[in-house]
Amino acid sequence: MKKIAYLGIPGSYSHVAATKYFAHDVSMHGVKTLAEIFAKLSNKIFDLAVVPLENTTTGSISDTYDLLLERKLSITGEIVLKIHHQLLANKNQKIEDIKNCYSHPQAISQCEGFFSKHIKINPKYTSDTASAADFISRKKTKGEAAIAGLSAAKIYKLKVLARNIEDNKNNYTRFVILSNKPNKEGDKVSLAFAVEHKPGCLFRALRAYAENNLNLTKIESRPLFGKPWEYIFYVDFLVHNQDKELAMTLSSMKEECQFVTVLGKYKKGKVYEA
Amino acid sequence: MKKIAYLGIPGSYSHVAATKYFAHDVSMHGVKTLAEIFAKLSNKIFDLAVVPLENTTTGSISDTYDLLLERKLSITGEIVLKIHHQLLANKNQKIEDIKNCYSHPQAISQCEGFFSKHIKINPKYTSDTASAADFISRKKTKGEAAIAGLSAAKIYKLKVLARNIEDNKNNYTRFVILSNKPNKEGDKVSLAFAVEHKPGCLFRALRAYAENNLNLTKIESRPLFGKPWEYIFYVDFLVHNQDKELAMTLSSMKEECQFVTVLGKYKKGKVYEA
Repeated sequence: MKKIAYLGIPGSYSHVAATKYFAHDVSMHGVKTLAEIFAKLSNKIFDLAVVPLENTTTGSISDTYDLLLERKLSITGEIVLKIHHQLLANKNQKIEDIKNCYSHPQAISQCEGFFSKHIKINPKYTSDTASAADFISRKKTKGEAAIAGLSAAKIYKLKVLARNIEDNKNNYTRFVILSNKPNKEGDKVSLAFAVEHKPGCLFRALRAYAENNLNLTKIESRPLFGKPWEYIFYVDFLVHNQDKELAMTLSSMKEECQFVTVLGKYKKGKVYEA
Repeated sequence: MKKIAYLGIPGSYSHVAATKYFAHDVSMHGVKTLAEIFAKLSNKIFDLAVVPLENTTTGSISDTYDLLLERKLSITGEIVLKIHHQLLANKNQKIEDIKNCYSHPQAISQCEGFFSKHIKINPKYTSDTASAADFISRKKTKGEAAIAGLSAAKIYKLKVLARNIEDNKNNYTRFVILSNKPNKEGDKVSLAFAVEHKPGCLFRALRAYAENNLNLTKIESRPLFGKPWEYIFYVDFLVHNQDKELAMTLSSMKEECQFVTVLGKYKKGKVYEA
């Protein structure tokens, strides 16, 4: 049975992504930090891992990209979750009874509209959303709620007092599946590269995509203060008649770039509701 | 006297950025949310505002970009802060006495090395770093600490028990100055644009930069699920002989893009220690 690591505790969004992605014949293991996941996957304590890579509201998760470059693991899959926030409480509680509401500050700030309508509810902060659900469930508190996902409600046996209370209805997180072995097949490729910081260098590095008819689905420059390269670029693109176009693109990029690293080749992921 | 709005309470990193950027003859006003800053600046309750735009670890702050497109305010300046985290406590406290440490979850996770060496100290979460400093200062607690910047230490009269406890020594945040009136002068330009999501479109939109010898300092695609454009791109670039090159670049981009919006023209900012 394959051992799958995910970020956080049961009910975390990475856990939801892992359970949607994998069939049932795997064992799931919650891990506290990204660094620990990468270290344990590299040391083959786990077979695969599910980690967040970017969010439409908060942007790319640089720690994940840094660890990908450092640890030489490969992206072998992806899955996108549409993030919803639920107000959860123990049984026999009404929304009028709630005085304190626990969650991560980001989740709380994403539900500002809800708090402005319920001014009696005080926000209280936790390290993550699933921990907030775990906390009120274990304390069996009255008059207290948590903001977390539907999956956390099920796992910690909490009732949904208010559904989809997030302000922004277009909040998506993209998760990737990591492995020690790169995939050979796939219609999507992620890579990192650096070019000299001079006019025209980035343009020439991207020429291969236009010439080979490859569509970029992401491009991002990341400033690296005090590093040998001033910028690293991350790109994702779709490949059709994959092997030839990909080989030509990589060989053309290698001529223009200071370095090019393939982070993985994988099947374009589907979008699920969290 | 000009009224300057900044994000958060006194001692926040936006407050530090505002005090480094402006001379002393201004009045500073802390504002709780980005949405409130943009609304009050648009309504001329404030003259200028200082808000975070991106961070080297956590990426672009999409809320700031969204509000910039929505509210038609202009970027008229920038400043970069190198972020340091300090362990702060009330007087007569030693590090051995500390049992609880308050801060934003992100600041706490950025000091993981410190917590792993001081396993008796329990993290406690707050909405932001300056609020953590304010909280322990007002409570005059013993055995409790906060993680925040040096400026918060001064404002809330706290002692630095451990200096620069962040794991990542290359953590920078870029702040922008916002105004109702666009600048005419400046050597840096920020803009947003969208192109058709087809191979070669992005490449053609960027051709003008190579042809006009303009160096991009940032490029980022932002996916917009369920929006008319699948992606918006954000670019920053430096202009030398500004007016002609900029006009030619914008006119060439307008031919290739579905839309192009100049977010602002301003003097490239300096880097300060926070």
